[in-house]
Amino acid sequence: MTKHSEYETIDPTAELITTYNELNSPVIDELTEPPSALEFMRFVAKNRPFVVRGGASNWSAAETWNIATLKKWLKGQDVTVAVTPNGNADAPVMTGDGKIMFVQPLEEQQAFDEFVDFVVGQERTGKKIRDVKEVRYAQTQNDNLRNEYSALYSQVEKDIAWARIALQKSPDAVNLWIGNSLSTTALHKDNYENIYVQILGKKHFVLLPPVAYACVAERHLPSARWMRKPYGRLEITTEEDHSIPFATWDPDNPTPAAEMQTMYSILAQPMRVTLEPGDMLYLPALWYHKVSQSTSDEGICVAANYWYDIEFGGSFWPLCNLARTVGTTALQIEPEDIV
Amino acid sequence: MTKHSEYETIDPTAELITTYNELNSPVIDELTEPPSALEFMRFVAKNRPFVVRGGASNWSAAETWNIATLKKWLKGQDVTVAVTPNGNADAPVMTGDGKIMFVQPLEEQQAFDEFVDFVVGQERTGKKIRDVKEVRYAQTQNDNLRNEYSALYSQVEKDIAWARIALQKSPDAVNLWIGNSLSTTALHKDNYENIYVQILGKKHFVLLPPVAYACVAERHLPSARWMRKPYGRLEITTEEDHSIPFATWDPDNPTPAAEMQTMYSILAQPMRVTLEPGDMLYLPALWYHKVSQSTSDEGICVAANYWYDIEFGGSFWPLCNLARTVGTTALQIEPEDIV
Repeated sequence: MTKHSEYETIDPTAELITTYNELNSPVIDELTEPPSALEFMRFVAKNRPFVVRGGASNWSAAETWNIATLKKWLKGQDVTVAVTPNGNADAPVMTGDGKIMFVQPLEEQQAFDEFVDFVVGQERTGKKIRDVKEVRYAQTQNDNLRNEYSALYSQVEKDIAWARIALQKSPDAVNLWIGNSLSTTALHKDNYENIYVQILGKKHFVLLPPVAYACVAERHLPSARWMRKPYGRLEITTEEDHSIPFATWDPDNPTPAAEMQTMYSILAQPMRVTLEPGDMLYLPALWYHKVSQSTSDEGICVAANYWYDIEFGGSFWPLCNLARTVGTTALQIEPEDIV
Repeated sequence: MTKHSEYETIDPTAELITTYNELNSPVIDELTEPPSALEFMRFVAKNRPFVVRGGASNWSAAETWNIATLKKWLKGQDVTVAVTPNGNADAPVMTGDGKIMFVQPLEEQQAFDEFVDFVVGQERTGKKIRDVKEVRYAQTQNDNLRNEYSALYSQVEKDIAWARIALQKSPDAVNLWIGNSLSTTALHKDNYENIYVQILGKKHFVLLPPVAYACVAERHLPSARWMRKPYGRLEITTEEDHSIPFATWDPDNPTPAAEMQTMYSILAQPMRVTLEPGDMLYLPALWYHKVSQSTSDEGICVAANYWYDIEFGGSFWPLCNLARTVGTTALQIEPEDIV
């Protein structure tokens, strides 16, 4: 392998990220009306995001939802709520002994109106995350808007017409998200083309393209879950022999722990966009996204999203896989950590 | 670098090619009518080729061109002709001393009717390539259908409507190709989205996707050109201090010289398609293509093609560049050979 090393004057991973940054704007494209299927397909072809300002502002949901109407339509219904002490469901958590784990939320059933009262009441106290015992977030991502929340489904579009026509498929899942400003979704990616629709409050996205794989410090983390202990206290319970590859770099943390960054993190050029009520975001497949939120005047944040299956044909998937393999090797992660 | 080598259990280049082959058909998609701009854009997004059978059969060119009409419309006009001894313009040639060079054709001006008589007359002799002194091919690729051959331009489409609408640009070049079955275009790629239209005779394409970079044995070849010597003999003249990166692997040669293949060539799955008169081919950007031809009953092969600039935005270009850099390193080519 000595001969190999001699010729390694180009770092392909650094070159990939810098070439991408040179050829692409760090600012998201903004549309003022929904795209045609063809216009959308041009963005899909480039795997580039865009926001449609006010693209959903005439939806019934955007025009009629508030705490009172949501409570009325979901009266008497239980919903699944993710409970965490720090508002970080499905996130890397550094435990007291300095170990990083991938911790999933406790999931509890709760009457919808009690859940909303909790979320809104907490928001109105103005408390910071360190001063609360727990944070609740409806975020099951299991097609919940066509199941648990089906009473609301008639008030959003069944699917996104321009995405359905362009991609020639119906959404695989339509999800509703309800929470307050104390919940954050950690940086991660999904194998889906994603249309995100803001209804109440705002979402603040930090975005990174798939080529930034080597920047996000993906690690194979032991899987764990928040569990209720006596007196309602939340504690981490490890799940046996199960680990998850997950990004540990936080684009908002200027001084990350050494093990939560890589030598390439400094090359990342995060793209930031805030969705206002009625705005839509196209979040392309495999893009990393971190999402935080702020609430409406009533103290709530509500959004819906549409997941369309990724296209595995063509060169995009194999090439992203190459970027991952090369990045992993460059970072000298042991092969058993590669998934 | 020892530590690095220890972990190199996955060969990213082999994985890239085999993953691509697993996820994509080796058979080209066939349409029976021209696509809409949106349907075309879906292929562009996947960087996948297709053929439209009979897609141009109602063009005036397809209905009216033959040797007599072409001679009539180009009466008295000189055209630029590529002259080579073996029908291989812009191709790697192994010289008598075993050196491989990139040899461009001699270019000569010739009256159109004389050129056509030469091409057709040669075809009608039925001679093999080893039995002829020289082969002539009109193949300037410099937008010649809107310049040298502008008398014919009104009989083809000005551009390809579905490509223009989808890509939001006019063609950068529209080229005419006239030759006989003794001409072959060596395996190469272009930085263009390419729509190829067969008018008379047939073209036989061998296609490889950009991810097959490491299969094609790209080498940095000294640049040379065929020149006329006394008695009309053709001889190679080297061009000073100039070299060209070029594929040297021939997908039709089952026993290539060691230096004209790589350890990855065996992984290549060439896609083959023959264009009949009136057929159109979408040849996506950066796809390798080798092209041979057969003639109409009259002994001529005529085609046109439309080049649209490649899209450098998005992830495709940087990722193809990564595949190239990684492949080059895997093949241990010295860095100064990397362009």
